[in-house]
This record gives sequence, structure tokens and C-alpha cells, in this order.
Amino acid sequence: MKPSEIILNASDYVSEERLWELLMDVATYGATEKGGVNRQALSPEDTAAKNHVVRWATERGFQSFHDEIGNLFIRREGNDPTLDPVMTGSHLDSQPTGGRFDGAFGVLAGLEALEALNDAKIQTKRSIEVVAWTNEEGSRFSPGAMGSSVFSGIKTLPSVMDLTDPAGVLLSEALKATLSEVLATRCSLGRVKPHSYVEAHIEQGPILEEGEIPIGVVSGIQGIRHIDINVTGEEAHAGTTPRRSRTDALVGGINIVNALHKLTFDDKDILRFTIGRFEVHPGSPNTVPGQVHFTIDLRHPDKKVLSSIGDEMHTVAKNAGGECRVEVLDIGFITPTEFGIKMINIIAKAADHLNYKNVTMPSGAGHDAMHLSNICPTGMIFVPCLGGVSHNEAESASSQDLAIGTRVLVDAITYLANE
Amino acid sequence: MKPSEIILNASDYVSEERLWELLMDVATYGATEKGGVNRQALSPEDTAAKNHVVRWATERGFQSFHDEIGNLFIRREGNDPTLDPVMTGSHLDSQPTGGRFDGAFGVLAGLEALEALNDAKIQTKRSIEVVAWTNEEGSRFSPGAMGSSVFSGIKTLPSVMDLTDPAGVLLSEALKATLSEVLATRCSLGRVKPHSYVEAHIEQGPILEEGEIPIGVVSGIQGIRHIDINVTGEEAHAGTTPRRSRTDALVGGINIVNALHKLTFDDKDILRFTIGRFEVHPGSPNTVPGQVHFTIDLRHPDKKVLSSIGDEMHTVAKNAGGECRVEVLDIGFITPTEFGIKMINIIAKAADHLNYKNVTMPSGAGHDAMHLSNICPTGMIFVPCLGGVSHNEAESASSQDLAIGTRVLVDAITYLANE
Repeated sequence: MKPSEIILNASDYVSEERLWELLMDVATYGATEKGGVNRQALSPEDTAAKNHVVRWATERGFQSFHDEIGNLFIRREGNDPTLDPVMTGSHLDSQPTGGRFDGAFGVLAGLEALEALNDAKIQTKRSIEVVAWTNEEGSRFSPGAMGSSVFSGIKTLPSVMDLTDPAGVLLSEALKATLSEVLATRCSLGRVKPHSYVEAHIEQGPILEEGEIPIGVVSGIQGIRHIDINVTGEEAHAGTTPRRSRTDALVGGINIVNALHKLTFDDKDILRFTIGRFEVHPGSPNTVPGQVHFTIDLRHPDKKVLSSIGDEMHTVAKNAGGECRVEVLDIGFITPTEFGIKMINIIAKAADHLNYKNVTMPSGAGHDAMHLSNICPTGMIFVPCLGGVSHNEAESASSQDLAIGTRVLVDAITYLANE
Repeated sequence: MKPSEIILNASDYVSEERLWELLMDVATYGATEKGGVNRQALSPEDTAAKNHVVRWATERGFQSFHDEIGNLFIRREGNDPTLDPVMTGSHLDSQPTGGRFDGAFGVLAGLEALEALNDAKIQTKRSIEVVAWTNEEGSRFSPGAMGSSVFSGIKTLPSVMDLTDPAGVLLSEALKATLSEVLATRCSLGRVKPHSYVEAHIEQGPILEEGEIPIGVVSGIQGIRHIDINVTGEEAHAGTTPRRSRTDALVGGINIVNALHKLTFDDKDILRFTIGRFEVHPGSPNTVPGQVHFTIDLRHPDKKVLSSIGDEMHTVAKNAGGECRVEVLDIGFITPTEFGIKMINIIAKAADHLNYKNVTMPSGAGHDAMHLSNICPTGMIFVPCLGGVSHNEAESASSQDLAIGTRVLVDAITYLANE
């Protein structure tokens, strides 16, 4: 794509103010006192945010579709509706103490792109669909990136239905409520096959801000391995049970964590090891815990490292648990993703054409794009966020940077939609 | 007390079968499907159990009294009714998923002791009263050991009246219903001052069973120190945040626990250190935890040990937390109770005289006896329970062991009632 090939620049019509207003409107759903959002997947807040998007679409004459796993699509019809559409989007669900931009920016940048295309009176050959994938975060129902994984055929719909949230609510029940309340047209998962997919997202890391670079052209996504560990000891009275007679699940669990910290120590600091959920039952101050459950999130750009260290965890955890019964469950293994050079080039050239400094970089976080890359050419656009902070109510980004990302996005998808 | 000083052994008249039958009769009040009891304080089941005891007393010509806080007393008159009575007993209320012996054994062993004294035709100088204290468990209305604390003047009656149970019921209302339904004579809290108090109880721990020792002569009740620890780090994205940039509250929390385990390691296994509640926020698998909160339950028979180790925890925890902010809060300090040597000797000698192997040991759990020890010489007799299990529907004890405890009890109180 040479600059001359872009006939009309929808990017000229992107409104920084309009985008910001939409972001702030959507940030009211699940807004927290500290300025973040708690809009967990398939919650009433998540549904309300989706319906805000549906109303936005209806007011502008765009069709909305809602598939069996709750993915929401806003369609701007192309000249040839029979062609595979170009897709862009991200997710509207958040972490329990999440920020206003993680996910929401990608969806609302897509809507701003549609608005800019309308204002520019650009008619594309292919339709463009803005999508909000269900449960990217995985904080309520694990694992995340669920809607995109089901859409892409990585997981089947029945395989996730029996998952439960920490309160014991079945995913099938939460989904049923969402599907009945979101005002979009119901559609099947097989309704469309994307021609290509571009996702805009805040970086969630410090590289762009540190380098004063407004655009990251994402080369790929590091792999993730999820492992759950259940430790079973025996409940006992805190006052009457000597140490020698205890099978304390918390002691066992902590010994396992110590062993895993040793196993995963990487002096190059590339391997990412996180225990984000650590639950202790029954949780009474004067009862020796009988059960510990914790999650492991292991990430690395090299599949071999994830395979060997993840496999080793099974043995290490079992050996470290002492007299407790230790169960190690492989929950998910997302192999590292490499985006193709074609999409990297289209995004980089759109940024170059707009004279925005940009850098090609891998993503430290998982995104819905990793699943889409299995079924169509896929790319991502990163914009800086304050201090690299994300999954935090303090998450922030500037309206200028978000508008810059949206300008690159709309030009890239316009190009793709005319292929 | 030399063996020769015991003229008549009421213990010869203790009936294992009669005691077991009475225990099983009372266990029907609030009986659960799993073989335990749910007979929470001031509930209809608790009242029904009390009335069973009142009917038992009436049939045998003993007087029953019921004071303002619902403590129930069954009196066997001595030769000199003006002398302070010897008391024995425990409680009839249970945990929501409690066992058939915790508390009930102490009350019903007292009744069997009265029956044995009758059968042996022993007339004591002092009266003997069997007492069922109100709300020892504290599971419905917290704190527990309430009836004995009010009786002993540790708490005032008005100070507990406005407590509510988890359903919002006022203690004063629940108490009013109980007082109107229990068929005993109403009496005032100041009706009698006990000469001495002996409480029989299952051990609720494994020491006697492990040592194949039928009798524990309780030296005192260990003290309890409650400390809360809050660890604050910074939430961060599990994928994008390198280890060097993390302030992981779970890593900080676990380092503190490791340091506390080292601090509290007692090779004599007398110090009890329990972390029963350990909460990690926000609890999302792919977010580095920003907050950890955990409770410490520290018990020891020696107040000095509790003071020094508890105080040291403040420094140790703060030093071990790395870059996390660590807050150490002193929540409570119940000083140890020491039963006097006189009562320990009377109980030990009664057991020796009956040729029952016995061991002097502290109580790991709190009991009504800790309050009584403030107003009169107090002792306790422990009997083994299966696997040391208590506060559990699976709680069990053998009829032989319960009868052995009752034999020691009746001889000890007979001795005291002739002082």
C-alpha cells in the first residue's frame, strides 16, 4: 500500500472529542469510586455497556448481531454484502478492579471508525464489523478470551457452558440472562467468516510511553499457559491440634508456591509467572484450612519454554505439598501467536502515511486477536497508557493518543475493506 | 487426698449404658442427617434439650433453676444447704454443624454423677449443682462462653442483650422465648456462689487418643492472641509487567508467612500458630495481586510467650514484606488461664485412685471453666475423642471413655462437696 493508494482518508474525520465522550459514557457502566470499572463478563454492568453500544448502532442505522456466546457485532454494510467482512474490535468486560480503556478502547475506536467513514462518505467494498468479544478478561469465568476462542473454533460452545464463577453461578445461566437482555438480533456463530481482523488496544506496558512513540505495530502475542492447583488438607481446631497432627492446606499451598517461585525464577526476566487467585477454605480464623485453590498464569514468547516449565510444575507441586493431596490441572495452553507480515505492513504504512512514529513490538498480554489469527489475517495497534499501568483502576490514556490509534485503525481497515 | 480419704466411691455406681442412653436421647434435639447436632444457643432445639434435662431432674426429685441469662442448674441438696455448692457442668448448645459430645458430655456426666451419688446413697456436706451454661459456642451470638461470663461477672447482662444473630434476631428476644419455655424455677444470677467448679469435656484434640490415655487433667486454658496482617502491593497485568516492575502483594504475603513459620516453629509443639483466613485481592488469575489480608491465631499456655512472639511478629512481618506496605494489627489478647494446683491434684488423684492413666495438659480450646476460674477453684477433666475431631458432625467418643471421665468427675466432686 503506497500512500497514493489511499484515495479517501477516513482518518481525517476521526473526532478526538467524540471518541473520548463515548469512552467516558461507556465507563459509567460498572464505574468504581477510584475512577476505574468493575464490569465483569456477563454481569448486569457488562450487559448495560453492550446495550449502550447497540443503541449507538441503532441510532446510526447500523445492524447489531449477538451470537450464542454473547459476542456483539455492529455491521456497516459494504457494497458487496456477500464478501467476508473486515472485523475490528476488542472487549467490553473488565477486571474486577479494572480500568476504563482496556478492551473498551478497541470496541469504541471501531465505532468511531464507522462514524468517521460515514462522515467521510466512504463506501467500502467489504462490510466492516465492530465486535465486542465476550469474556476476554477471564476474571469471572476462567479462561478468558472466551468469546473469540469459541468464534474462532478453538473451543466449542458446550465446553464452556458448565464453568462457574467464584460465587458458583454457571456460565450457561449468566449467558442466558445476557442473551435475553441485549437488544441485538440473535445470530449464529457461523454467520460470517472474517476477511481480516484488526484490534486496537492500550499497550498495558511501559514501552511506548518510555519511547514517546504513539503507535505500536504488534508483531505477535506471547504464549500463555494456565494451570490450577488444588491442595487438600484436613480442617482442624486451631487451639487443640498440635502442628504434628495437622494437615494444613495453607502450609502445603505455600510450600508449593515457594517451590514454584524457585522453578520459575528467570534472571533475564522474560518468563512471567503470576498467581492471581489464591483461595483458602473454610476461611475461619480459628480453623486450620482444609482446602487451598490457586491459579497459575505462565507466559513466554517461546512455546518450548512454556511446555517444559509448565510440565515440570506438575512434579514440583506434587513433591512440595507434603501430606496434603495435590491436584494439578492443565486449564489452557495458548501457544505464542505471530501476526503475518502483511498485516504488520498495512498497519505500519497507515501510521507512516499519517506521520505517526511507530515501532513493531510483541504483546505481553493476551488478546482476542490471538484466536482470530487462526482463522484470518490479523493485526493489532497499540497506543501508550500512563505508566504502563493496566488491570488497575488507575489505568489511564490520553485522548490524543487514543485518537491517533483510531486514525491508524480506520485507514488500515478501510484499506482492507477495499481489498 | 489419699485414697483412704475417699470413704465411699460413687464412681462404682456410674453406669456406662445409662450415661450413653442419656447422651443419645439429648442428641436427638437438633440431630442432623450426618449424625451430628445443630442446636445453636437459645434456639428451639436448645430449649428442648434443656427441658429434657429439667424433666430428668424432676423425675428424680432434684430442683431446677434457670437464671436471667438462661443458665440452667440442677441441684442435689447437701447436708448443709447454706454452704456454697460444688458445681459441675458445661453447655448444651452446639456449633451449626456440631457434634453430639462437645458440651453435652459435661452436662450429662454431671447428671450421671448425681444418679451415681443417689445409687451409692452418698450424702455430701455441700450441695452439688449441675449447670448447663448458655451459649458457649458463640456461633449464633458472638462471643461465646456467654452464660458463664455473665454468671462470673466478667460481662454484665445488659452488655449482651442487644447482640443479634446472623438472621437479625436480638439476643434479648431469643432469651425471652427460652426463659418462658424452660420449665425450671426462675432464679437470679446471684442465687449462689460456687465453692468450686469441675468441667468434664471431650479433648477436641488428638493427644489423649494418640497416647492411649483415658484422662486429661487440665492444667489451664492456653491464651490466644489474634493478629491481622494487611499487605499492600500494586495491581499489575500478569502478561506485560516484568518481575522487576512488580510489587506483588501475594509474593510479599507469602514471604511474611514463611518468616512467621520460622519465628513460630516450636520443636516442643506447644505453640499453636494458625493462619485460618488468607484473602487475596482482586483475585483474578491474570492480575498481579495488590492486596493480601490474613489472620493469625496464636495460642500458648504461657502469657510471656504470647507477648514476646506476638510482639516480634510486628517486626518480622514488616521486614519480610519487601517493597509491599505491611500493616500489623493487634486484634485481641486473651491471657491464659491457670487452674490451681489444688484442683489439678484432686482430679489427678481421683484418676490415680481408679487406676486410670492420666496426663496433665493444657486445654487448646476455650471453655466456660475459664470464666469460672475467676470466682472459684476450677478444674477440668478431658476424655479422648475420635481422631481429635470436634466442631464437626463426625465428632465421636467411646462410651467407655465417657464413663471413665464421669467416674473421675463424680469422685472429684464428692471429695470437694465434703470439704
